[in-house]
Amino acid sequence: MADPPTIPIVGGTGALGAGLALRWATAGAPIAIGSRSAERAEEAAERLRETVPGAQVEGLLNEDAARRAEIVFLTVPFRAQSENLNNLREALAPGQILVDCTVPLAAAVSGKATRSLGVWQGSAAQQAQEMVPEGVTVVAALHSVGAPTLGDPRAELDEDVLVCGDRKADKARVARLIELIPGLRAVNAGALEMARIVEQLTPLLISINIRYKTHAGIKLTGLPGGDHWE
Amino acid sequence: MADPPTIPIVGGTGALGAGLALRWATAGAPIAIGSRSAERAEEAAERLRETVPGAQVEGLLNEDAARRAEIVFLTVPFRAQSENLNNLREALAPGQILVDCTVPLAAAVSGKATRSLGVWQGSAAQQAQEMVPEGVTVVAALHSVGAPTLGDPRAELDEDVLVCGDRKADKARVARLIELIPGLRAVNAGALEMARIVEQLTPLLISINIRYKTHAGIKLTGLPGGDHWE
Repeated sequence: MADPPTIPIVGGTGALGAGLALRWATAGAPIAIGSRSAERAEEAAERLRETVPGAQVEGLLNEDAARRAEIVFLTVPFRAQSENLNNLREALAPGQILVDCTVPLAAAVSGKATRSLGVWQGSAAQQAQEMVPEGVTVVAALHSVGAPTLGDPRAELDEDVLVCGDRKADKARVARLIELIPGLRAVNAGALEMARIVEQLTPLLISINIRYKTHAGIKLTGLPGGDHWE
Repeated sequence: MADPPTIPIVGGTGALGAGLALRWATAGAPIAIGSRSAERAEEAAERLRETVPGAQVEGLLNEDAARRAEIVFLTVPFRAQSENLNNLREALAPGQILVDCTVPLAAAVSGKATRSLGVWQGSAAQQAQEMVPEGVTVVAALHSVGAPTLGDPRAELDEDVLVCGDRKADKARVARLIELIPGLRAVNAGALEMARIVEQLTPLLISINIRYKTHAGIKLTGLPGGDHWE
């Protein structure tokens, strides 16, 4: 991609959003960090400009960030997902893609981070699909990439990102953005309903991380080489 | 391990069981192939002796196979899991470990193989733990290793096996057997309840396999090197 579009990150001041912003800014992509507070968003943007000299980054209210480009990333904790989706109803327009990264960890209701909550629609991503305005499509991705690893500029990434969605063309567009980050490969995991399983990779990795005192990632073996998204 | 113990495989004439038997026999481990039919078990043993000259393999009724060693593998389809566990009640004795490999695919009730069934106890492995005699412990493993890959002697394996169980010592004993097979690394995925997630890796891989026309496996990145089970 010669000129990557702006990447809006709703909840961009959280750990996952900030880690993604760091990686994308480092890769030269323009970023719109969204937050409930324009002031906090601008502070995060300022920090990112200090860490990554020349970073093209602005800090905005979530709703304003979501208007910056067709593909919008939602990186809020599950506890805040519905509230954020409600707030985005006026901001999102038909044709946009919302990339939901939400993991329904039981930690959202003071349970364990190795356990998850049942979501009535099947997954957080399917809940998002129900809540976005008509004509907006949801793609689910980036659940299994650890925020601490993303946020550590010295950490080398070497893992796959499982992407779920009902249209391959949408997933391919999201995959291009994910693969701007060196060390991440986007893998087509199937329809949006597969987010039921993909979202569960996070508590599984947390369980493994506890035992191995590490930040593990997922990789698939046996996939053909080359560009999977052509 | 100088002298690996016999490895009983209940349901050893099925695709997963036969694939495991092939790999373990090739590695020099003695195998007890179990089946509901002693005749079918002996036929499978005979085929294995032809494929792997010098293989130490016997074909037995499931119940007799289960008495051959402390660690018993259960590799039947979900549809037959409860029936098999009922049949094993008299055969299994306290101190034994049952390694449950069952995946509750919706295919068991003529649904899709990319979907799974909800199991009341949380997972097939937890259902097994409820059904085995007192004093028998269940470890869950080997869900994500594809039977076609295992069963093809020319296919090189290169993947991780996520092992769930409530006692590390039990998991370590199972891990030693899994790691007799070249190309498989056993990873401690946490308590038995984590089988809720690990069993879901199979429908996820099936979804990926459909898209990539391959037999994908799972690997974790970021784990420390060396023997994880000491």
